[in-house]
Amino acid sequence: MAALRLWGQEASGNCYKVKLLAAHLGIALEWVRVDVTKGETRTPAFLAMSPAGQVPLLRCADGSHLPESGAILWYLGDGTRFVPTDPLARARVLQWMFFEQYRIEPNIATSRFWIHLLNEADRYAAEIAAKREPGLAALAVMEAHLAAADFFPGGAPSLADIALYGYVPCAPEGGFALDAFPRIRAWAQRVAALSGHIAMHDPLRPPSAYVKGLP
Amino acid sequence: MAALRLWGQEASGNCYKVKLLAAHLGIALEWVRVDVTKGETRTPAFLAMSPAGQVPLLRCADGSHLPESGAILWYLGDGTRFVPTDPLARARVLQWMFFEQYRIEPNIATSRFWIHLLNEADRYAAEIAAKREPGLAALAVMEAHLAAADFFPGGAPSLADIALYGYVPCAPEGGFALDAFPRIRAWAQRVAALSGHIAMHDPLRPPSAYVKGLP
Repeated sequence: MAALRLWGQEASGNCYKVKLLAAHLGIALEWVRVDVTKGETRTPAFLAMSPAGQVPLLRCADGSHLPESGAILWYLGDGTRFVPTDPLARARVLQWMFFEQYRIEPNIATSRFWIHLLNEADRYAAEIAAKREPGLAALAVMEAHLAAADFFPGGAPSLADIALYGYVPCAPEGGFALDAFPRIRAWAQRVAALSGHIAMHDPLRPPSAYVKGLP
Repeated sequence: MAALRLWGQEASGNCYKVKLLAAHLGIALEWVRVDVTKGETRTPAFLAMSPAGQVPLLRCADGSHLPESGAILWYLGDGTRFVPTDPLARARVLQWMFFEQYRIEPNIATSRFWIHLLNEADRYAAEIAAKREPGLAALAVMEAHLAAADFFPGGAPSLADIALYGYVPCAPEGGFALDAFPRIRAWAQRVAALSGHIAMHDPLRPPSAYVKGLP
């Protein structure tokens, strides 16, 4: 199969998820860098490919374009070891993927965007404050789940682990310290220890910042 | 199959989606009413079943509980006419389901919650104002898609149409008039005209408010 083209930004956890899954599965991706902070996802040319102006954006084998990290993960991952075959087990993978996009990403990733990527914590102080309680609540739900499971939804690593790993380990960059979440820290280290794992290449972060899967 | 139990609230679009799909598929649901506005999703007993305190919540055939409307829709709908078999077509269904949960629900459903369900538009004026631009942008993405397709992702009705129908037709109750979105209005009427369709039973809305699928 020819390399699939992926438009994305290195420091985006949503883009990193796709790169991480591709690394595990040996899928070749042709990376096209797009800088969200410079409006490069709002140009007419980009919007023609990605109507909501989203990265990651995948060009599929048939030449069409697929946005939404969760949909791209499912497209690349269904039929592999990262998606179970039992219908309820498959639904539980999606349960945690929707959880990630609704409760982790809008709180933790957006806080990290303002603090870490834009370096404008003061300007966005009110927005960041509003994200604090729901972000901590989402992390608490993950921590509770990990009392009885090593992965999401459990047993073996799944697409849900890939999706959650996009932003949860770098939660401290969004002001969410993980010290109070020892099971999440241990889970992140388990995911980072999987054969085939690659770290996020965040140019704003020194490579040495990642130790055992956590910044 | 014994009736599956569904915990939910009538006026919740997320819960309505599941009822709507079940009506189309002839799946019997035992409905258990939970009032979100009275804290009934935050009790210890409910949190033991739904760790993030979410409705809808499905009790599956094996007795376990499944939250997240998108995951419930996939669990009940995969293998039916609402989910295609081609891998890319399946991913595109998920693309629009993730779009709905990330761009429609957090803007339009939350505005509707404050305005219509809580009747506290003044108290939440700042929050509602902040949701306006992203909500309108999401509707514009839907409107553009419908220039070349009758449904989401296209061709035949899919789970994505069921998911989007949860909140989009009642967007006016969240302050988002649909007059500027004629294709969305026509799409909603197409969905409402499908054999097996049921309307949302919102006790805060007179039954006559729904005319041809739109409030």
